[in-house]
Amino acid sequence: MTKLFMFEKPVGMKDTLPELYQLKKEVKDAIAKEVTQWGYAAIETPTLEYYETVGSVSAITDQQLFKLLDQEGNTLVLRPDMTAPIARISASTLKNTQRPLRLTYDAPVFRSQQREGGKPAEFEQIGVELIGDGSNSADGEVIALMMSSIEKAGLENYQIAVGHIGFVNAYLFEILGNEARVEVFRRYLFEKNYVGFRKEVDQLPLSSIDQRRLKELLTLKGGPDIINKARQLAESEPTIKSLQQLEQLIEVLEAYNLKDNILLDLNLVMHISYYTGVVFEAYSEGLGFPIGSGGRYDGLLEKFHDPEPATGFGLRLDRLTEALGKTKEAIRNDMCIIFSNERRKEAMEKAKQWREEGHTVVMQDLIGISDVDAYSAQFNNVTYFVGSNGNGGHAK
Amino acid sequence: MTKLFMFEKPVGMKDTLPELYQLKKEVKDAIAKEVTQWGYAAIETPTLEYYETVGSVSAITDQQLFKLLDQEGNTLVLRPDMTAPIARISASTLKNTQRPLRLTYDAPVFRSQQREGGKPAEFEQIGVELIGDGSNSADGEVIALMMSSIEKAGLENYQIAVGHIGFVNAYLFEILGNEARVEVFRRYLFEKNYVGFRKEVDQLPLSSIDQRRLKELLTLKGGPDIINKARQLAESEPTIKSLQQLEQLIEVLEAYNLKDNILLDLNLVMHISYYTGVVFEAYSEGLGFPIGSGGRYDGLLEKFHDPEPATGFGLRLDRLTEALGKTKEAIRNDMCIIFSNERRKEAMEKAKQWREEGHTVVMQDLIGISDVDAYSAQFNNVTYFVGSNGNGGHAK
Repeated sequence: MTKLFMFEKPVGMKDTLPELYQLKKEVKDAIAKEVTQWGYAAIETPTLEYYETVGSVSAITDQQLFKLLDQEGNTLVLRPDMTAPIARISASTLKNTQRPLRLTYDAPVFRSQQREGGKPAEFEQIGVELIGDGSNSADGEVIALMMSSIEKAGLENYQIAVGHIGFVNAYLFEILGNEARVEVFRRYLFEKNYVGFRKEVDQLPLSSIDQRRLKELLTLKGGPDIINKARQLAESEPTIKSLQQLEQLIEVLEAYNLKDNILLDLNLVMHISYYTGVVFEAYSEGLGFPIGSGGRYDGLLEKFHDPEPATGFGLRLDRLTEALGKTKEAIRNDMCIIFSNERRKEAMEKAKQWREEGHTVVMQDLIGISDVDAYSAQFNNVTYFVGSNGNGGHAK
Repeated sequence: MTKLFMFEKPVGMKDTLPELYQLKKEVKDAIAKEVTQWGYAAIETPTLEYYETVGSVSAITDQQLFKLLDQEGNTLVLRPDMTAPIARISASTLKNTQRPLRLTYDAPVFRSQQREGGKPAEFEQIGVELIGDGSNSADGEVIALMMSSIEKAGLENYQIAVGHIGFVNAYLFEILGNEARVEVFRRYLFEKNYVGFRKEVDQLPLSSIDQRRLKELLTLKGGPDIINKARQLAESEPTIKSLQQLEQLIEVLEAYNLKDNILLDLNLVMHISYYTGVVFEAYSEGLGFPIGSGGRYDGLLEKFHDPEPATGFGLRLDRLTEALGKTKEAIRNDMCIIFSNERRKEAMEKAKQWREEGHTVVMQDLIGISDVDAYSAQFNNVTYFVGSNGNGGHAK
């Protein structure tokens, strides 16, 4: 523990200044409009949840949780994602509403960071959850809506990787035969550490056929034909069923006319552990991290005593604005009226009129400015109501 | 520590469901538009700040702070207000920008609650800070803008109490002669415990004149004539100066044509301890708590090594929406298309077209619905693209 400077912010915490705020707001508004038009209703949940309930099912590792104690001695967490809190609401307050249920949110989530990491410890997510519909149409809808949201936000160069965690799990299991080994390989896939994956394969006492089958998993990326290739490798019923679901999903996405930006990736593994079926990630050209992700989580609602299927996506506003690769130019205020006491009322009436016409008008008492030249330079248009004899003088 | 139900939320924490969210959003958007038009630029600050810096100057009592430890052993707090974080930014990142500086925010703040309290532990505040202008025009502007914001939010029956904490402090001090005694009386005023105040007066060894002067403070509420009454009671230079500032403020507010909703209250004391001058609170008819408050805090920026005057206000969105006394009626979705696989593409094209025309359109695969009659009943307009031979069938 070191002495802090008065201006320091906690590790991973950021301020958002007006220029970036403006861009972020435009992105948020565009996405909110789109998801609303697709029939998703917006809700909010508290920043703090109990560790024992929402915290424990949220699938973020314990060391990434911000924890604190409340006055009764219960452990609270700053919500690490929005899916678990929304599952809580769906299974309680909204339990008796019609299914499928379409909800949307826009909220900061929290992940504790090591000092070295440089990652944000708080970031804003905007996303949807579609609860109570286990069909391929539901999977297709959330992918299509994520793509449409990204486009409405103004991003053109992006790609969606679509996989199936059920396929990965079943395929690894049919070859490896136990869950502990599956977990080792799943972790290599999550880390995209394909060198480590291959080394691990070589070290295991497997038949050469099974070794080949494991390594072939890494090649299952590409267009729809990948599914046929996978069919030749897969044997167990769950793998075949997963491939069938993917095939049907592709049909749905083709009906949306979405193909160009989609890549099948049958070894896609994401860090959120509650996914059970179709999963997907969105990438922007030149950005090392996904700008959004989502998938099916048919087991989560059960933890709130309300077993039902669900799917959804979340977009990261910080990365999305970064991918847009621009901030708004420094905001120049539209108009300013500088006045002295004598002509205050006149100045106020003019400001009121201009604001009603839709302008941004700063009203500034001359007495509150130390350098009128520097101050007035920041506006496009400055009008002076100063002194007792003049008319409203214009400058610039 | 008791076993929690899976659905429980921490004490004082709330979900916001779609109906209330909708109303809140309309209120927020209306206020954001108004403050933007007055030239205030929006910023965001992190949810977590260091206790040692922002936490310690924020003037919320220690037991009301949510505290946690970071991985380096520093104490963090969930921000209890937005004024201190904005002072941090103004004094660092924005130190060299032009003054006066006009900033606005819309963010949740946190106050830990006792289980009995029933008060929210997290609530959203929308407000402004006007930094670097010590003039009466600045005080008048933030009061006028708060009133204008309340009106744009749709509230008509409200009142603003305007006082001067500098006057209260100086007046109590000139009679009581020491700060400890002043603090006792200030607390009675903050609690609006006038019975306790009078009892305390009677118990003190003061001259009958001073006893009367203390009790007269409680009567200093009303129109502008109150200032003359106060002048006859006050003696010290700081009290006279405070009254002068109030008198000039009233002139400013009269120029804005604001009088009807304003009441002078010379014993107004608010719980935020950093106020130094003009203070004000907004009340709505029939609501026991203020919907907003603000005031001058000329000493706060100094704590960030950047002494300059400042004033601002904050509105509480929860109380403002409560005062509006309505929620939006249950959101009925505009339109729904129910389709089967065979006619998916046709359904999608129609949905796309209607959304482009501005409608909200839910697209729902028939296979994902368990009770089509109950499901379709929630929409104003349902179109069916089902089966292989029919035309798009309308219902309702």
